[in-house]
Amino acid sequence: MMPHRQPPEIDVLDLIDDEEWPQVASILADLHPADIAEIINRASSDAHEKLFAMVLTDLKADVLSELKGIAGEDILESLSELEISTIVQDMAPDDAADMLADLPDERSEQILDLMKKEDSEDVRELLKYEEDTAGGIMTPDVVAMKENQTVAEAIHEIAYFETDEPLYNVNVVDHGDVLTGFVDIWELLRERDKGRPLRDLAERDFVAATVDMDQEEVAHLLSKYHLTAIPVVDNIGTLVGRVTADDVIDVIEEEASEDIFRLAGSDDIELEQSSIFRTCLVRLPWLFITLFGGFITSAVMSRYQASISEIIILAAFVPVVMAMGGNTGIQSSTLIVRSIALGSLKGRSVARILLKEIMVGALMGLACSAIIGIWAHIFSGMSKTSTFTPFQISTVVAVAMFCAMTFAATAGALVPIVLNRLRIDAAVASGPFVTIMNDITALLIYFAVTVTFVNAFA
Amino acid sequence: MMPHRQPPEIDVLDLIDDEEWPQVASILADLHPADIAEIINRASSDAHEKLFAMVLTDLKADVLSELKGIAGEDILESLSELEISTIVQDMAPDDAADMLADLPDERSEQILDLMKKEDSEDVRELLKYEEDTAGGIMTPDVVAMKENQTVAEAIHEIAYFETDEPLYNVNVVDHGDVLTGFVDIWELLRERDKGRPLRDLAERDFVAATVDMDQEEVAHLLSKYHLTAIPVVDNIGTLVGRVTADDVIDVIEEEASEDIFRLAGSDDIELEQSSIFRTCLVRLPWLFITLFGGFITSAVMSRYQASISEIIILAAFVPVVMAMGGNTGIQSSTLIVRSIALGSLKGRSVARILLKEIMVGALMGLACSAIIGIWAHIFSGMSKTSTFTPFQISTVVAVAMFCAMTFAATAGALVPIVLNRLRIDAAVASGPFVTIMNDITALLIYFAVTVTFVNAFA
Repeated sequence: MMPHRQPPEIDVLDLIDDEEWPQVASILADLHPADIAEIINRASSDAHEKLFAMVLTDLKADVLSELKGIAGEDILESLSELEISTIVQDMAPDDAADMLADLPDERSEQILDLMKKEDSEDVRELLKYEEDTAGGIMTPDVVAMKENQTVAEAIHEIAYFETDEPLYNVNVVDHGDVLTGFVDIWELLRERDKGRPLRDLAERDFVAATVDMDQEEVAHLLSKYHLTAIPVVDNIGTLVGRVTADDVIDVIEEEASEDIFRLAGSDDIELEQSSIFRTCLVRLPWLFITLFGGFITSAVMSRYQASISEIIILAAFVPVVMAMGGNTGIQSSTLIVRSIALGSLKGRSVARILLKEIMVGALMGLACSAIIGIWAHIFSGMSKTSTFTPFQISTVVAVAMFCAMTFAATAGALVPIVLNRLRIDAAVASGPFVTIMNDITALLIYFAVTVTFVNAFA
Repeated sequence: MMPHRQPPEIDVLDLIDDEEWPQVASILADLHPADIAEIINRASSDAHEKLFAMVLTDLKADVLSELKGIAGEDILESLSELEISTIVQDMAPDDAADMLADLPDERSEQILDLMKKEDSEDVRELLKYEEDTAGGIMTPDVVAMKENQTVAEAIHEIAYFETDEPLYNVNVVDHGDVLTGFVDIWELLRERDKGRPLRDLAERDFVAATVDMDQEEVAHLLSKYHLTAIPVVDNIGTLVGRVTADDVIDVIEEEASEDIFRLAGSDDIELEQSSIFRTCLVRLPWLFITLFGGFITSAVMSRYQASISEIIILAAFVPVVMAMGGNTGIQSSTLIVRSIALGSLKGRSVARILLKEIMVGALMGLACSAIIGIWAHIFSGMSKTSTFTPFQISTVVAVAMFCAMTFAATAGALVPIVLNRLRIDAAVASGPFVTIMNDITALLIYFAVTVTFVNAFA
């Protein structure tokens, strides 16, 4: 059973492309704001303004807070500051802050000035925090009560508290608003003596996030301790907001997308892109890393021209040695990048991790080089064009692959560790960067081994 | 501010390695079960049994439900069926079912028989569902009330309901237990007439998951509609359980890890692996895909030996054409795999997506082949060993790269789409499979272009 207002089965996007506006409008009228936003997000750029104009006035705030990337930009561009300010006033303060943070400072200032003071104050407060921290994703709507207030007061407060996010507990604070504990809503209900002070019921063993905590870390705390919301405190412990689980779900999906795209050599803003040209602009910079590496690989290959032309069969194994090096390196870097993202690398000694990756690379290198050695032996036996024996050729290929794989595993682990230490997002440079580095190294190793053996056999 | 029972700053893992058991025990005694589980998960295999034995009896259930992979296996192996049954009895039914599902049928049957009937019934019910569906991750603990019951009755029910998961609303059902709506806890509190029937307050416009819905889809519903929990119904609409946001966070992290590792050609069970040998066993099968592809690339290279030895400079550009093909293909397949995972591909015409990827590949191919063409021109001008003019060489390289990149973008998009249609997890085969396919194709294209031009120029 799905929501009673079902997302449309027929393809609204086709109706939009065909400019069947009356039909589109009647479909949108029945939808949940999240479904409307999804349709606008996926529609092509020229339909964005028109579609948003169809949204009922009291849904505009909800729809706008769900719009992403280009759809959001298009619509904010098409609206006046006054129009935006009336919509933003109806948004949850955290959504409003997220949206205004993406606008030029001057414009967001104008919009804030046009808003009611009580609404704009909350938003201004949130805009102070970095977007990807607890402060940046929290809502400032919290119920804070003193230790000596009663259960009855707390129940009343929670029942009549105005917020856009569900609220399931009261936070207990001391006289300086420092968070000292919390009481769950059902503890309040279960308490027979409604005149009891919160002091007696408060759970003191709580988890809180600090305003400047990275959003990924906030997500881990929620997931690890199975929380539906986490209070946010400033550096001296004063309660300033809370982050709810549904916001964290968005954070995790975004961060995972980001890591996935970075490993592949791309950018997750692609997920919201629709034009071919813009997609190219997002992907090309990453390809240029590979292309630049290509300048080097061609130079390396060319440097060893003499060896290649002498033992032409050896050129046949260049692609497999490179591919195996590349794949091994990405396996290692992926493990490290993901372990960093999930926080499971903390407190581990770098030397131990590196040693393990080297051992793994070497062990797999042994297995794979044995297989490719046998293949090279059979294969070069068949082709018989070489001045070298099949045994010599298979030795060169096997040794080169073993060295390339061991090195690739080491480099694949080392690069993200180093980047993380330098406080650069490890996922950024791990994919294409590690691959091209391993390509170049695999080639150098291959030819170094070749030259060494050619001299030895000669 | 962190939890009052702080996770240990000093490296417990080192203490465990050094077998400083009394110190380890005193640290564990102060920790949250989630922190204890994290330490056991990360400790080496031979310490698992010892560490779990140190856990206080009433925390054993909580700790065991958080253990993953090898740590969980080790401890379940070390315990008798009777010991497990007493621990499992204290677990949330969904955690118990998850754990028993991983055991051999016979053993989990023995454990269930040893449990109290009332506990085992819930677990047996949950074991019927596939692990990665709404049924598999839900808890059966729900508050269901009839339409004519009152607000006061609902408040009482919710306050005294025994559950391991937070509970924030009552579900309203008809006489056949079919879900008809829900009432939020604070609606109940705000209602002044506590004798009012729930019928008058129920929100009818709700979202529900069906038992057999994929867990990723459940996660999307929660995230899209900003829910902290979602009711689960069977195929005729009867309420059977609910999924809470914290469970969904785990699901999203797991699914993202899975996709990331598959793209890299590995497996996310690696995240829990500690031994070098086991890590190799996980990674090697993926490398064999690449290795097998290497048999083909070497055969292709060898087939074109004559051309290579004739125009040796052309061999220098084999690596860059292959690398660019590989990277372009992974960019396309990543976009498709992630779009499938996030559900944003639904209702889109496959032809439109493919056409876009082809256009993007061709456009980027144009840009990159222009650059590599210029480089090849300069480079082959410098080396002067070729019988062909720099113009001819740069034409061959540029045309080959353009074709390879356009093909790679197409194949990169097509493979995951086809796999998805065949109901195979698209992420499984996209990484190494797409890369090696593009390697082989890039080579074939490269030599086809070479031969064509060599004949034309000759």
